[in-house]
Amino acid sequence: MTKGLKLSIDAMGGDHAPDAILKGVDLFAHENPDARFILHGDQAVLDHLLAGLPDATNASEIRHTTDIVPMDAKPSQAMRKRGTSMWNAIASVKDGEAAACVSAGNTGALMAVAHLQLRTMEGLHRPAITASWPTPKGHCVVLDIGANVDSDPDQLVDFAIMGEAFAKALFGLERPRIGLLNVGSEEVKGHDDIREAMRLLRLYGATLGMDVHGFVEGNDISMGTTDVVVTDGFTGNIALKTAEGAARLVAAFLKEALTSSPLAMAGAFLASSGLRQLKARMDPSNSNGGVFLGLNGLVIKSHGGTDARGFANAIAVGARLASSSYMQEVADNLLRLRDVRTQAQATAAATGGAGEATPESDVASMGQAAQ
Amino acid sequence: MTKGLKLSIDAMGGDHAPDAILKGVDLFAHENPDARFILHGDQAVLDHLLAGLPDATNASEIRHTTDIVPMDAKPSQAMRKRGTSMWNAIASVKDGEAAACVSAGNTGALMAVAHLQLRTMEGLHRPAITASWPTPKGHCVVLDIGANVDSDPDQLVDFAIMGEAFAKALFGLERPRIGLLNVGSEEVKGHDDIREAMRLLRLYGATLGMDVHGFVEGNDISMGTTDVVVTDGFTGNIALKTAEGAARLVAAFLKEALTSSPLAMAGAFLASSGLRQLKARMDPSNSNGGVFLGLNGLVIKSHGGTDARGFANAIAVGARLASSSYMQEVADNLLRLRDVRTQAQATAAATGGAGEATPESDVASMGQAAQ
Repeated sequence: MTKGLKLSIDAMGGDHAPDAILKGVDLFAHENPDARFILHGDQAVLDHLLAGLPDATNASEIRHTTDIVPMDAKPSQAMRKRGTSMWNAIASVKDGEAAACVSAGNTGALMAVAHLQLRTMEGLHRPAITASWPTPKGHCVVLDIGANVDSDPDQLVDFAIMGEAFAKALFGLERPRIGLLNVGSEEVKGHDDIREAMRLLRLYGATLGMDVHGFVEGNDISMGTTDVVVTDGFTGNIALKTAEGAARLVAAFLKEALTSSPLAMAGAFLASSGLRQLKARMDPSNSNGGVFLGLNGLVIKSHGGTDARGFANAIAVGARLASSSYMQEVADNLLRLRDVRTQAQATAAATGGAGEATPESDVASMGQAAQ
Repeated sequence: MTKGLKLSIDAMGGDHAPDAILKGVDLFAHENPDARFILHGDQAVLDHLLAGLPDATNASEIRHTTDIVPMDAKPSQAMRKRGTSMWNAIASVKDGEAAACVSAGNTGALMAVAHLQLRTMEGLHRPAITASWPTPKGHCVVLDIGANVDSDPDQLVDFAIMGEAFAKALFGLERPRIGLLNVGSEEVKGHDDIREAMRLLRLYGATLGMDVHGFVEGNDISMGTTDVVVTDGFTGNIALKTAEGAARLVAAFLKEALTSSPLAMAGAFLASSGLRQLKARMDPSNSNGGVFLGLNGLVIKSHGGTDARGFANAIAVGARLASSSYMQEVADNLLRLRDVRTQAQATAAATGGAGEATPESDVASMGQAAQ
């Protein structure tokens, strides 16, 4: 999978950078000896850390820069500052040197810098950030989780196209089922925009041979009712953060329960292997790597607080996408859709209906919703 | 608390009605001998079930009707059908016979029938449905979770007023902290509507002496960052269903983990008392009773699939609200706000800003988001 694959790493981005970042690279390099890396960051600091990481050392070249984007940087600040480790990491993708960029830096800043350099794909209204959510059977792809603060029906269709290709590439699904997040599963539910989005999704989905399941509700995400759940960035961001909070609460309650008495503690000790299993399944670093979809280049956003294992997993997401036909498939689908869309929008405009594309809003506002 | 308190019960609403309903009444009556009940439903059926429930029998009078609202009924159907157990249960509140109505029937139907008979409170734009969400410290009040499919800034302010009074009445808080759900906690985050809502919330909150914490994110709900979380019905419904799904998933993973090996099972057995504790804390029936806020009368919606204990808890919510100054406090705050609002809206209109109230949309669409 990783033969001849070169990845661009923002070595200075993340709460535990560059230490956790380089250790993550070392983990991935150890398991994928063919992979190569361009590490963007402070030469002296990186050289010092690499001394103890032979696999990373052998697989990497360093591109020196002392400029970094602080974790609390505003997107607008990051966009004005060229030559940072984040900026250069994305430039390596733009220049075709690397197949994907992985960064644990500030999400809003990364999205803004990535969008500024790579631009939105031809025929796409807006990019989106996607998350992989654990389900009993595997994972559910949810997008947008925060690249935009609102999305019109046409943008939601774009998200469905990207989410489908993403699920195929990352999970090897032949025909992912697509769901549109709503307050009920019946077609009559929700506000006008969401019902119009479903109408377009069925119309365009038929052209693309997409498996459009229909509306899904919030609980369907964790149930894995569909492989892809499409929603606007506002709802998606709030829903997933609320769910993460609830999952953490249950874990906290469980810990309390298992330390509530000596007997319970003994039980917890006996069950510890099983409980470790549980911890591993809920560990965000095992489904790490939010991906910016819809740009002319692959950019993987790792959790800011990621550890080495989490960052290695984020690299793996980038490697799998880069060695898949993801980019091509999205481009093809958007092309195949162009005429159908122009037609539908003309009809809609004639009948005074919806369907018009909205202009791109200020790039600096992008990714503001993401955590 | 329940001295001289009379509650109106829709005995035929719910997946396990009337059995679970009457057993719930019996449980509550046993713990609150002063409480009285009007049971709406089929006399013969209810008499037969009451035979085994002495506490419920002594505290109840039956109002006979054979008409019911099916669990899959559309709001519009329920509204056209007078004389159902649901209709009559709400009528008892309208006529001043009962202090609150409790029903486990179809949410959309109940909301529509309740709104048709009780109407929205003077000075309020739209009613809302509220949920109590468990936190490490207790509960967080979240509204709207589905009475509306979208809400403008003025409606969100209404929700804050009702949520504050609800938290005071139900949890005895002196000055609940109010949060507005958004994609980030900084004031610049989110779309125009949500920022305008925060502006109004701070403006009006100052007049009402409200403790406005500011924006909160999804994970803040389970963390209990604020006592009240205000959001629109679309986002609130999806966020809470997503969180419920995630909590159920963790529980399922835990069960798997604790049955993964004989050792784990032995441990689970030893820890069973602690695990029962956990189950109890996560059991929805322990925080049962979504309340319809903003009508001229108290209507408590119990989970449709509730058991006897869950319904008794829903009755308890109604009893606590009915014996509190909740209704008066909301009415007073709306009155105190009227002049400030008129002024602000005039200014806004003059400067071409937001702040206008939207007309009530078709009542039949109400509650459609709620589960």
